[in-house]
Amino acid sequence: MNAPVITQIRRAIPAGFLEALAEHFGERYSNAQAVREHHGRDESSYAPMLPDAVVFAQSVDDVVWVARHCHRYCVPLIPFGTGSSLEGHLLAVEGGVSLDLSLMNQVLSIHAEDFTATVQAGVSRKQLNEALRDTGLFFPIDPGADASLGGMSATRASGTNAVRYGTMRENVMSLKVVTADGRVIETANRARKSSAGYDLTRLFVGSEGTLGIIVEVTVRLYPQPEAVSAAICNFPDLDAAVRSVIEVIQMGVPVARVEFMDAGAVRATNLYSHLNLKETPLLLFEFHGSPAGVREQAELVQAITREHGGMDFEWAEQPEDRNRLWTARHNAYFAGLQLRPGCRSNTTDVCVPISRLAECVGQTAIELDQASFPYTIVGHVGDGNFHVLMLLDPDNPDEWEQSERLNHRLVERAIAMQGTCTGEHGVGLHKQVFMLAEHGQDALDIMAGIKATLDPHNILNPGKVLPAALTN
Amino acid sequence: MNAPVITQIRRAIPAGFLEALAEHFGERYSNAQAVREHHGRDESSYAPMLPDAVVFAQSVDDVVWVARHCHRYCVPLIPFGTGSSLEGHLLAVEGGVSLDLSLMNQVLSIHAEDFTATVQAGVSRKQLNEALRDTGLFFPIDPGADASLGGMSATRASGTNAVRYGTMRENVMSLKVVTADGRVIETANRARKSSAGYDLTRLFVGSEGTLGIIVEVTVRLYPQPEAVSAAICNFPDLDAAVRSVIEVIQMGVPVARVEFMDAGAVRATNLYSHLNLKETPLLLFEFHGSPAGVREQAELVQAITREHGGMDFEWAEQPEDRNRLWTARHNAYFAGLQLRPGCRSNTTDVCVPISRLAECVGQTAIELDQASFPYTIVGHVGDGNFHVLMLLDPDNPDEWEQSERLNHRLVERAIAMQGTCTGEHGVGLHKQVFMLAEHGQDALDIMAGIKATLDPHNILNPGKVLPAALTN
Repeated sequence: MNAPVITQIRRAIPAGFLEALAEHFGERYSNAQAVREHHGRDESSYAPMLPDAVVFAQSVDDVVWVARHCHRYCVPLIPFGTGSSLEGHLLAVEGGVSLDLSLMNQVLSIHAEDFTATVQAGVSRKQLNEALRDTGLFFPIDPGADASLGGMSATRASGTNAVRYGTMRENVMSLKVVTADGRVIETANRARKSSAGYDLTRLFVGSEGTLGIIVEVTVRLYPQPEAVSAAICNFPDLDAAVRSVIEVIQMGVPVARVEFMDAGAVRATNLYSHLNLKETPLLLFEFHGSPAGVREQAELVQAITREHGGMDFEWAEQPEDRNRLWTARHNAYFAGLQLRPGCRSNTTDVCVPISRLAECVGQTAIELDQASFPYTIVGHVGDGNFHVLMLLDPDNPDEWEQSERLNHRLVERAIAMQGTCTGEHGVGLHKQVFMLAEHGQDALDIMAGIKATLDPHNILNPGKVLPAALTN
Repeated sequence: MNAPVITQIRRAIPAGFLEALAEHFGERYSNAQAVREHHGRDESSYAPMLPDAVVFAQSVDDVVWVARHCHRYCVPLIPFGTGSSLEGHLLAVEGGVSLDLSLMNQVLSIHAEDFTATVQAGVSRKQLNEALRDTGLFFPIDPGADASLGGMSATRASGTNAVRYGTMRENVMSLKVVTADGRVIETANRARKSSAGYDLTRLFVGSEGTLGIIVEVTVRLYPQPEAVSAAICNFPDLDAAVRSVIEVIQMGVPVARVEFMDAGAVRATNLYSHLNLKETPLLLFEFHGSPAGVREQAELVQAITREHGGMDFEWAEQPEDRNRLWTARHNAYFAGLQLRPGCRSNTTDVCVPISRLAECVGQTAIELDQASFPYTIVGHVGDGNFHVLMLLDPDNPDEWEQSERLNHRLVERAIAMQGTCTGEHGVGLHKQVFMLAEHGQDALDIMAGIKATLDPHNILNPGKVLPAALTN
């Protein structure tokens, strides 16, 4: 289970291919080094691998045109949203064209009575919520970055609200997709449910640009809660925190967010966000509902946490306090990086059944404590998903190897516990090595068959999701 | 958009094929007329089309054996759960083998702390809830029939609880599936979320036995609510009822069930279930939560319905009253049939965005009032899904034709409103004619490509879901 060394092997670009692209896209075509560098990387630690050119689509027709052009000449085509993915998704491992969708950033429609909105793929989650501000509705999915809705669909993203509102899997109602050969399909309609045929929506959600190019996204919206409150609770250890969360869910408390931070993550956050949180393992709760309902939820949670050894249950009822707290949580990644100036990071993303979470984190922490580098842990504990941020000296290859070994052991542990190598980041390049252990050869063969059916020339983000041996 | 006449065209069964089946399955093989008749039909109005033989699987190995045998000789194989589907799903339009899974009825594991259960495909929803009784958890999906979890997965079923808990799409965590050629895959693990590759779970959910044979199902469970209350509210018309529901949802009331019945459905239910409901359009609500939360929800809903002209808001707080009410609602189909003794029924299943629901039902009712047969309407109004039960004289083919024309116009209307031909029943035979209008040729071609990849000999429930021209 060692990560293979990835070498860029560019496909041959036919003579005249790039010139035709340049002619079609005019100023929205670039082969400048800086533009290609920006598009050949993401937020992972991989060194960039540059596409041959970048085009900026303004319309579905643009996307259709470039898909047909690439399909005809077997040239790789890599959809690009905001570049915030974390697993090497955007590296041009076979060269080709990066298709930047950031200019497709229109909110196309908001149907407030139906609790749906349709946006172009380049619209970001914050932009959507800005557009929703006067409707009384909001879109809950919140990965750390202000990612595009197209990218979030492609990676099946989630974040801190998933315990209550689900992930992109549950909240994408329909997609407009351009296929590898330039056909345009709608995967569904705006009905809340349908049994009419195979679920193409869910097939494209999480396909990481390898099965089609997502150009429009219709999502579910939710009423802005009448009342919101947040609370922090310190714990002697993770096990006590997890026991609390299991009981909270068993009691039917519809908690909106419940996030775990280890003492190291709290320390980093205190430093970075100028807070004074007590530096022990802690849970961060948020409650949504009516004023009375929120109060009731919080009181019940306070009682449950106390029984499990929770201490210093503290409220954040003012919006500015809450926002400061959640902003700090969303910045935990950057806060962690600051613990070791100049470091690069390696981030894990396993998700396990919640009954195994404390054990999984605990065993991992014991191993991490032996490592020569610092680390922090944060977790979407209601979902059993947690991230270890390993802070590595970029000049010390041994640390990278150590961190990879630790991640491999962590993923093996998670899979043995009936969990997954990636809860929300996606496979990209970095998690491919685990796909066989997680899914088995027969399931991977089925995935590869689907890929071959939808993208027979393997032009769509080649080298991602499935091990290359299955798709070449 | 006229439904094609369906004629059974049996594939040739190779000499010795059935004998080998009989030898392998022994007493669990049958070619008796009565057994074949039972397996060549469902709850739809289609005349039965008999399989050549029926086998009763006891294990995954049995399923693998029969799949390999059928795959090798290109003989159709039709998975059979409880026979309660509604769209002709189980008719052996090309003959072949009906694979009865009812003996695979073990609850394999319940992980209460993880809110998951794993069952064999033949376990019914009531059986699962019986097994869960002492855990404090329940499984919410409730189609009218006591269907099998395998069948419910295969049709992407839902029911009255979907507005709060979602459908099988949201509540199946993982499936064990036997492929057409007898490989066994697990589509996912027990993590609550995963971004590890293509979503095979959702691909098989709703595939109606055409992509693989579901042999095990892992589902999400929910805490039994601490308090439950139900209420009935009469309305002057549907529009007032729908306006109420939209506002209830906009206010963030987490209503667990909200069902519409037209005056005819109420009358039928009064007769069949010996109730005294006022025979006007009505909404049936159920609230889940803490005692205080349930009270608050109900009070808010009462205020909202009153503003929209709701009358006679009436409580059913005692469990026996509630159960009587919901049993009556679940029996609305049989109650309707009793309105016209000896009738056969034609049932519709469109689902539209809720903002269009009143208009869709209203226009449909105007047309139905011109028909020569009686009808009732019930609806999962929070989801925009409703059923017209058309009660037809079996000896009058003109009534069947009228009802088909009305359904066609209804589906066209629903699709024009960005809705679907089937919210929860599935496509089977009866809804195929609408697939092109709903999905477009390109999306259907992609579905057909997936079908060909997973089932190259077209043995799995052939002739269902996709128009035959696409799969033969």
